Amino acid sequence: MAVYTEVADDELRDFVAAYDIGEIAAIKGIAEGVENSNFLLQALPSGAAAPMSYILTLYEKRVRPGDLPFFIGLMEHLAAAGISCPTPVRARDGVALRQLAGKPAAIVTFLSGMWPRRVQPRQCAALGAALAGLHLAGRDFAMHRANDLSVDGWRHLAEATAGRADEVEPGLGRFVVSELAALAERWPADLPAGVIHADLFPDNVFFLGDRLSGLIDFYFACNDLFAYDVAICLNAWCFEPDDSFNVTKARQLLSGYRQVRDFTPAEVAALPVLARGAALRFLLTRLYDWLNHPEGAFVRPKNPLEYVRKLRFHRSAGNPAAYGLDWAA
Amino acid sequence: MAVYTEVADDELRDFVAAYDIGEIAAIKGIAEGVENSNFLLQALPSGAAAPMSYILTLYEKRVRPGDLPFFIGLMEHLAAAGISCPTPVRARDGVALRQLAGKPAAIVTFLSGMWPRRVQPRQCAALGAALAGLHLAGRDFAMHRANDLSVDGWRHLAEATAGRADEVEPGLGRFVVSELAALAERWPADLPAGVIHADLFPDNVFFLGDRLSGLIDFYFACNDLFAYDVAICLNAWCFEPDDSFNVTKARQLLSGYRQVRDFTPAEVAALPVLARGAALRFLLTRLYDWLNHPEGAFVRPKNPLEYVRKLRFHRSAGNPAAYGLDWAA
Repeated sequence: MAVYTEVADDELRDFVAAYDIGEIAAIKGIAEGVENSNFLLQALPSGAAAPMSYILTLYEKRVRPGDLPFFIGLMEHLAAAGISCPTPVRARDGVALRQLAGKPAAIVTFLSGMWPRRVQPRQCAALGAALAGLHLAGRDFAMHRANDLSVDGWRHLAEATAGRADEVEPGLGRFVVSELAALAERWPADLPAGVIHADLFPDNVFFLGDRLSGLIDFYFACNDLFAYDVAICLNAWCFEPDDSFNVTKARQLLSGYRQVRDFTPAEVAALPVLARGAALRFLLTRLYDWLNHPEGAFVRPKNPLEYVRKLRFHRSAGNPAAYGLDWAA
Repeated sequence: MAVYTEVADDELRDFVAAYDIGEIAAIKGIAEGVENSNFLLQALPSGAAAPMSYILTLYEKRVRPGDLPFFIGLMEHLAAAGISCPTPVRARDGVALRQLAGKPAAIVTFLSGMWPRRVQPRQCAALGAALAGLHLAGRDFAMHRANDLSVDGWRHLAEATAGRADEVEPGLGRFVVSELAALAERWPADLPAGVIHADLFPDNVFFLGDRLSGLIDFYFACNDLFAYDVAICLNAWCFEPDDSFNVTKARQLLSGYRQVRDFTPAEVAALPVLARGAALRFLLTRLYDWLNHPEGAFVRPKNPLEYVRKLRFHRSAGNPAAYGLDWAA
């Protein structure tokens, strides 16, 4: 669940009154997302017959306030460039990022669609194309945010979990140390880079039937390698519930991407190591959350071992052909 | 939070296709209600410009399937009688109560409004009037459901918690036993009765400004004393966060009720004992949940001791004047 903050009626009414969206018609806490408090807000513009839907987000402690202008600015930039994503709504004074119940807060537009609980291969093709479109649209975004969950960040997480990793699986601590060393040595630097989503899991991608209707949750977005974003999606979209790799989904994802933005040969060559690194990134954050979630917390932590198995696949994959890419070794 | 069941895309599409409400435009798990899984469902009727909102409920294990026809039938009956409450939507075959993901499921209409996080006295007046309206509208409802959370039900809960009640507060077990005995002896039988809501807490009552816009969550509704329903509301609406009793709110609630349906003298006289019983009912269900909630459960149990304090107020209240009622002792 993701409603950490209760908002009092009068506070909420005052907050919404700063916007030109009408009167509150309804508000419901939404059980999606784990970092922030999200509410479906319906507002009735004066004289309108039907209310409009919005998402009201209160930014909780895992989001650094200093990063919020980047996230809000990015969504505005992408929406202006024609990407279907939540668009921050500015209040009458022109300001989109405000305060509610003592927390930073913003209202964004509501996107139609539903995220796929069971991913279909053709949805991977649409995802690939949308991801490439996102990369192209972000190229002229002026702000910059470093990826704090790349190699240096993994090192911090590895140190923070080293003492207790073996509680999850014997040998896991040593496995993380050796993977980290191998990846730090091989991590590519000179690949095409720009703004990446960095967390484009199925629950952040909406579809209406087979049509991709929007991308959400830009709160891990940062500047990094485009192909690393693709590698995250390979991990998030192309494994079956039994952790077997579905090369048909991977082929769809990659060819969908290439129809909008083609890979350079260096990106293709780097894909296995990037996918391995992406697996380590989610392994480490899940391991950290697994070891550090408070007793009785609302959010059930996700099992880090899923990403050990994914990582092993990428390590054994060897070359880009394993992902369905045409590749002359 | 209250999304216990994940529904696969194709299953959901097939489910919605049985209705005449159009294509799914969006679905979001809702973080309200604790007994069932609730989703906000938006559907776009063919040719319409804007989607319509509904609530999709999957009935989880705490609701007995055999009780569902009563709840669904009651909402239909009340809506037809002009009460603003969720109205079950029948599928094309005329059936409102269906199956989804192996669970009983229904789609009901979406009500505008927001529940009061900070109750205002004038909202208590509107609540009282709505409760009386509900009691009158339910009088010609043909179905019957016994209240399994009246005196006999309390006895079962008291027995089930007796061994561990003192873990919550020393002496609590003995307190429950003596209260149960006192209330069983004094519990009134011959008061006006009919369909009651039995759980009309603030989060089940929606307002648009000061106007009460609807009542929700009829899944404790049953046949019992009307004045007992009033007594539940006195507990749920008229205490401040520090558990002090706000007689202004009580007076508003009771006079709002009487403007629609007046109390008999016997109901007035019984109010203190009914309020004391209502406090014991919530004390016992909270105590049971407190002692029996699974480790790491999504729902944080509510503190039973709040109702010990409320019960003590009612026991000391002595006569109906304590609730702001004119009363010649």
